[in-house]
Amino acid sequence: MKSLVLSLFFLPSVLFSQNNDSLVLKKIYNFYLTQSKCYSNLEFLTTKIGGRLTGSAEAEKAVAWAKKAMYEAGADTVILQPCMVPHWVRGKKEKCILTSPKTKALPLNCVALGSSVGTGNTGLSAAVIEVKSFDQLKALGEKNIRGKIVFYNVFFDQSLINPGQAYGATVQYRSRGASYAAKYGAVAVVVRSMTSLADDEPHTGNMNYDTSLSKSRIPAFALGYQSASRLSDAIRNESGVKLYLESHCQTLKDVLSYNVVGQINGSEKPGEFLIAGGHLDSWDTGQGAHDNGTGIVQSIELLSLFKTLGIKPKHSIRAVAFMNEENGLAGSRAYAGFAEANKEKHLAALETDAGGFTPRGFGIDTTGGLYNQVIKWKDLFSPYHLSRFEKGGGGADLSSLKKSGVACIGFEPDGQRYFDIHHTAQDTFDKVNKRELELSAAAIGALIYLLDTYK
Amino acid sequence: MKSLVLSLFFLPSVLFSQNNDSLVLKKIYNFYLTQSKCYSNLEFLTTKIGGRLTGSAEAEKAVAWAKKAMYEAGADTVILQPCMVPHWVRGKKEKCILTSPKTKALPLNCVALGSSVGTGNTGLSAAVIEVKSFDQLKALGEKNIRGKIVFYNVFFDQSLINPGQAYGATVQYRSRGASYAAKYGAVAVVVRSMTSLADDEPHTGNMNYDTSLSKSRIPAFALGYQSASRLSDAIRNESGVKLYLESHCQTLKDVLSYNVVGQINGSEKPGEFLIAGGHLDSWDTGQGAHDNGTGIVQSIELLSLFKTLGIKPKHSIRAVAFMNEENGLAGSRAYAGFAEANKEKHLAALETDAGGFTPRGFGIDTTGGLYNQVIKWKDLFSPYHLSRFEKGGGGADLSSLKKSGVACIGFEPDGQRYFDIHHTAQDTFDKVNKRELELSAAAIGALIYLLDTYK
Repeated sequence: MKSLVLSLFFLPSVLFSQNNDSLVLKKIYNFYLTQSKCYSNLEFLTTKIGGRLTGSAEAEKAVAWAKKAMYEAGADTVILQPCMVPHWVRGKKEKCILTSPKTKALPLNCVALGSSVGTGNTGLSAAVIEVKSFDQLKALGEKNIRGKIVFYNVFFDQSLINPGQAYGATVQYRSRGASYAAKYGAVAVVVRSMTSLADDEPHTGNMNYDTSLSKSRIPAFALGYQSASRLSDAIRNESGVKLYLESHCQTLKDVLSYNVVGQINGSEKPGEFLIAGGHLDSWDTGQGAHDNGTGIVQSIELLSLFKTLGIKPKHSIRAVAFMNEENGLAGSRAYAGFAEANKEKHLAALETDAGGFTPRGFGIDTTGGLYNQVIKWKDLFSPYHLSRFEKGGGGADLSSLKKSGVACIGFEPDGQRYFDIHHTAQDTFDKVNKRELELSAAAIGALIYLLDTYK
Repeated sequence: MKSLVLSLFFLPSVLFSQNNDSLVLKKIYNFYLTQSKCYSNLEFLTTKIGGRLTGSAEAEKAVAWAKKAMYEAGADTVILQPCMVPHWVRGKKEKCILTSPKTKALPLNCVALGSSVGTGNTGLSAAVIEVKSFDQLKALGEKNIRGKIVFYNVFFDQSLINPGQAYGATVQYRSRGASYAAKYGAVAVVVRSMTSLADDEPHTGNMNYDTSLSKSRIPAFALGYQSASRLSDAIRNESGVKLYLESHCQTLKDVLSYNVVGQINGSEKPGEFLIAGGHLDSWDTGQGAHDNGTGIVQSIELLSLFKTLGIKPKHSIRAVAFMNEENGLAGSRAYAGFAEANKEKHLAALETDAGGFTPRGFGIDTTGGLYNQVIKWKDLFSPYHLSRFEKGGGGADLSSLKKSGVACIGFEPDGQRYFDIHHTAQDTFDKVNKRELELSAAAIGALIYLLDTYK
C-alpha cells in the first residue's frame, strides 16, 4: 500500500506538471508549425547546395552554410570539429550493358557503389552468375564463379511492416558482396537495389572491401529494380548472358572536413549536454533531402526553438551536423573524441536520420534509466500522434558516443516511403512535405525540452 | 474480486484467441503487401478513366469498371443501386483577372466551385471587398457590399495538428459563402483555397445556394493560395482593385447513375452485413486518386481478401462504391433506402475517404457497443502501427445509414498531406504510395475480418 499512498500524495503536483508541460508542448508545436525555418532551410541546403558527398566542394559549402544557419537560429557559439574524411569521387556516368547472342545491347540502369574501385575507361565484360544469398555463392564455389560477374538478386521482403528490417536483411550484399565474390574469383558484382519500389532508379550506398576475405578489390554496382529483373529474366531465358560494366570512380587522398556543432549554453549546468543531430553529407546522386537534409534542419531548428520562445535551458543544448555518415563515420568518431577530450557529460543524444516523414515515435536506450523517464511522457505526445516508444535508440552517427556509454535516442518517423528514394536521384526537396517535416521537428524539440527540464 | 477471478478463468482462452487472431492478421497483411491489386486497380481507375464527376461519361465508365473489378476480386454478386444524380458541368477553363489603375491585368489561378452558376461568356467585372469572417461581412453590410465581389480570405490554422480541423473551420466559406454574400447584394464570391500548402493550385469543392439567405444565385470561385495572397496584397496596397471573372459552368438535368455494391454471401447469417466503402465519383480537375480512388480500391480488395485466403465469412461482406459523394450524396441515400427496403441488418459500416496515406487508426461509433468491442483489439493492431482508436466514426457516405442507427467506422490514415492536393489537379495517381495504400487496405481488411469473426 505504501506505493499507492505515495502516488496519491504526489498526484496533484504530478498532474500540475503534466498539465504545465502540455501547455509548453502546445507552444512548441505552434512555433514549429507556424514560425520555423525548417522548410526554407531545407530548400536552400538541397536545391542551392545539392548533393554533398564527403570531401566534395558541396560538402564544404554545406559546412559554411550550417555554421551560418546555426548562428541565425540563435546559437551562442558554433564549433567546427575537424576530421579527416575519405574523398571518393564518382566520375563520369556509369554504364551497364547486357548482351547475349539473342540480346544485342540492352542498357541497364546502374550506379557505382560508394567506395568502389572503377573499371576505368576500357570497362569490363564478363559472363554473369546470379545468386540469392552468400550461402548459394559459397555452394557454387570458385569453379563456377572465377572470371564472372556475380549478380546478387535479393528482393526486399515486402511483408515486413518496417521497411528498415527489409533493408537490414539485404544491405549486406551491397556492403560486403564484392569481397565475398572476389574470394571465389569474381571480377565484379552487381546488386539489386535495396528498395520497396518497383521503378528503375538505381540506389547507391557504401560498400567496403574486406581484405580478410580477399585482397582483390573488384568494381561494385547497383542496378535499378526493373533492370535487375531484366537481367534475371535474361539469365533464365537465354544462354551466354554477359554484362559490359564501366565506372570511373576512384578514391583520392583524404581531406580535412568538419562536424558543425551549434550550441546554446546551459544556464545552470553548461558542462552537461543534450544534443540532436543528423548528417550533413549525402550521396551525390540526389539532393540529400530525406537523407539527411531533413535531420539537419530539424536539429538546427532546436536552437531557434529555445531562442524564439525565450526558454533558457538548464543544460547546454547542441545541434550537431555530423560529417561523413554515408561512407566512413569520421564525424561520429570526431564528435566522441572531442567530447572525451573536453570531458563533456552527455545526458542524452538524439539522432534524426530516418527521413523527414510524419512522426511515429522514438527508440530510446535504457541506459541510465532514460527509457523509463521518456515513457512517462507518452501521453504528452499522444495529441501529436506519436505512439511508438521502443527500447534501443540512436543510429550510425551516435555509434561512437554510444560506445562511451551515452544514452541514445533515435527519432522514428513513418518509414514507408523512405526506401523508395533512399540513395537515389529521387531524394530531392520536392519529396519532403512541409508539415510532416515540421511535426517531426516539433516532436524532437519537445523531447529535448522535457529532457532539459527534468534531467 | 469476482471480476478478477473471472478474468483469470478466461485468460487462457482469451490469450489463445488473441494469439490466433494475430496469426490471421499476419496472413491478412502478407496478402495485402505482396498480392493485392489495390495499386494496379488504382492506376487503372485514375489514369485510364481519370476524374469522374457525378453525371459525367467518366463516372459511368467507372461504374462499369467497378462492377468488373468487384467480380474479378471474387464477389458472389454485384448489385447496381440506381440513383438520380445532379449533372453539373464546368465547361471552358475559368478566368480571374485582377486590374487596378496600377496593375494592368494580372491573371490569378482560379476554379469555379461545384454547383456554382457560371458568369457566361461576357464575364463579370466588379470591385472587390475582402472579409475574414461572416461576422465581418455582416458588420460591413449592404452599403459596403452591394455590387461588389466578396473575397473570403481565410487561412488554414496551421497550428492545428489535424488538418481536417482546419478544413472544417474554413470550408463554410466555400459551401455557404455565396448565399451569405448575395444577401448583402454581392455579385460574386471568390474564396481562398482550403489548403495546408502555399502553392498556387486552386481547390474546387461543392457549394450550395441557400435560398433562405438569398434568392440570388451568384457565381463562386476558389483562388490558389498565392493568387489569394496577391489579391489581398493588391487590396491593401492599391486603390480601385477589380476582378474580371469568367466561368462557363452550368447544372444540366439530373441523370441516372449507380452505386456499385460487390458482395460475398455470408455462410451463416447472409442477411446481416458488414460493409466497407468509399466514393466512386471525384472532382473533374484531377484524377480523384486520394479522393477517393484509394478508398474504392481498398474496399474492392476486401472481397479479394476473403476469396484469396479462403475465409468464408459468417456474415455477408460488401464493398460499396458510392456515387455522388462530392456534390449531392444521392448514393448515400440510395444505399440506405435499398437497405431499408430489403430489411438488411447492418452490423457495422466502414468508410474510407480520408486519402490513401499511411494508417493511423479508426474512429468508431459507440452505437451497440461497437467502440468497446473494437478497442479490445488495439494491441492486435499495434505491430501494424495503428494506435488511434477514437470515438465517433463514419463520413458523408455513411450519413444516411447512420441516421438509421447503423454503427459506423471511419478509417483514419495520416492526414498531413491530404489538403495539399484535395480537390485539385494535383490529386493524381503518382501522389499515392503503394505501401501506404496497401497497409491501410490491410488495416481495413483486418478490422472487417475481426468484426465478422466476433459479431
